[in-house]
Amino acid sequence: MAERDSWAEDTGPLDFVEPDRVGRAIRPHLKPTTFLESPLLDERLGARVLLVSETTQHTGSFKARAALAAALHAESEHLLAASSGNFGAALAWAAARAGHRCTVVMPADSARVKIDNVRAHGATVDLVDTRAQSRQSRVEELQAKLGDVEVLSAYDDPHVIAGNATLGAELFEHERPDCVVVPVGGGGLSSGIVRARDRLADGVLVIGGEPLLANDAARSLKAGILCRDAEESRTICDGARTLSLGVRNFAILRRGLAGIVEVPEEHVAEAMRLLARAVHLKVEPTGALALAALLTEPTRFAGHRVACVVSGGNVDEELYTRLISG
Amino acid sequence: MAERDSWAEDTGPLDFVEPDRVGRAIRPHLKPTTFLESPLLDERLGARVLLVSETTQHTGSFKARAALAAALHAESEHLLAASSGNFGAALAWAAARAGHRCTVVMPADSARVKIDNVRAHGATVDLVDTRAQSRQSRVEELQAKLGDVEVLSAYDDPHVIAGNATLGAELFEHERPDCVVVPVGGGGLSSGIVRARDRLADGVLVIGGEPLLANDAARSLKAGILCRDAEESRTICDGARTLSLGVRNFAILRRGLAGIVEVPEEHVAEAMRLLARAVHLKVEPTGALALAALLTEPTRFAGHRVACVVSGGNVDEELYTRLISG
Repeated sequence: MAERDSWAEDTGPLDFVEPDRVGRAIRPHLKPTTFLESPLLDERLGARVLLVSETTQHTGSFKARAALAAALHAESEHLLAASSGNFGAALAWAAARAGHRCTVVMPADSARVKIDNVRAHGATVDLVDTRAQSRQSRVEELQAKLGDVEVLSAYDDPHVIAGNATLGAELFEHERPDCVVVPVGGGGLSSGIVRARDRLADGVLVIGGEPLLANDAARSLKAGILCRDAEESRTICDGARTLSLGVRNFAILRRGLAGIVEVPEEHVAEAMRLLARAVHLKVEPTGALALAALLTEPTRFAGHRVACVVSGGNVDEELYTRLISG
Repeated sequence: MAERDSWAEDTGPLDFVEPDRVGRAIRPHLKPTTFLESPLLDERLGARVLLVSETTQHTGSFKARAALAAALHAESEHLLAASSGNFGAALAWAAARAGHRCTVVMPADSARVKIDNVRAHGATVDLVDTRAQSRQSRVEELQAKLGDVEVLSAYDDPHVIAGNATLGAELFEHERPDCVVVPVGGGGLSSGIVRARDRLADGVLVIGGEPLLANDAARSLKAGILCRDAEESRTICDGARTLSLGVRNFAILRRGLAGIVEVPEEHVAEAMRLLARAVHLKVEPTGALALAALLTEPTRFAGHRVACVVSGGNVDEELYTRLISG
């Protein structure tokens, strides 16, 4: 189910953030990304796979990049955001570094480890039953109540995109692959990678991996207009349950993405098992989407040098062991 | 059960291998070790923990260092070794790089992933029922049968020790902790770390973590003479089931090690869970021994900067999920 939005073409200012300046500000505080390769993966996938893993980033996902870029730029003392968890933990971490208070609106069924992570960094967690109220509506409610608070988007924000672009910059400084496959939720990470590619690695294809059960971005790219899910998907990829791409992200992705692979749930679980077995990484479902895209459309990637972004590792142990026991 | 060996003092030549030369030869072929930190670990352990992880090393463990150093030095065309698995996979990998044939004697109950890893690199696997025949005896049998073959020890070998010392060198180039905790099996890794400490970080304590169920090294250090288990322990730490330290390793460890923590099995499993949760690493039981040592004797490490060597990640999925579900 999807509705088409008339505001899809209102892309807002895209270019006022200078990516090098953001990179210089945040990279000293970040962990370098982890590059991994494995003959076992290459053999299974028929491609030369380079894993670009953010599971060892601060707060366990790439979101530390986005959150720190946004927090350093924020003017209010109190930051407010909706997040399925990783951006929340990252923003809590970044807010603490930048001297801000922080409140995070999270779906009540978020992974427990993600809720714990947000609280561990001193932020306030506001749980919302997403079947009864959208995260966005709860954010607006809180904003009215709290007064002087700055609402940050986990993806539809120029600083967030510039922050995520630092991951692309690290990748392209490391090497120039044939293509980069990246998980797509709200489009924050993928649009950051596209921006880095545009500046540093012109001609390298960027391809999204999106859950088939939450394929609003794939539909948007096909339709040429922003499509929106009517309600949050039940995909195991909880980082990709966003109802639609952000407006800025769609504007970047519709011209910058070479395509989106729609990934069935069983390939996500298989990719998680492969990552555990081949490179000893514990990844969350959303973090396995890029590798799962190669399992879904192997001929598309056969023989190529493919960089797969592993976006994060935060997943409840119970769900994790169930999925990799498969 | 232990017997005391009269050959315990026959330490052999220890110093003819020049560690810098070995390091220059092998480090370009190795992956740099992965340094990880986590506030969650620090809070749980009351120490400032630096993880030094070799799970992302070639063949998934530190043994690639030792094996490559030994293989580059070998003169026979055919290499033969006994191994619970990680040295076997590493030697198969190193032999292929150095243009040698390779046969590995492995306990029949080794983790299946370890047997697969050895075969994947083109080596021959020879399975031995260790209740009926020791690995060493099977190696001697094969050596007599095969003729011109060079038998390599996974730990009691100057090149192996020098190869493992490169991990210590990377650590001490990165920083100077208060102490380093390292898993102890045959003593190959721990003696490599001691050698690196002696050259690069005089005064830093090196402490072993050994399974309580296979505590021959702890007993040896206390007795001042090499003690040997009567039969292979059933500890879940399959990399630490060796009957005794190597002669060279004991000579290095008895003067170089500040102590050994004897780790109960349940702390190994808890350390594996902590590593999955806090830093998203899938580690094998032996690889969790150092962190488990901190769980076993927390007051010994409280408030200190402690580098914990995570030696490898090769563990069957079934055992792994069972242990971290614990």
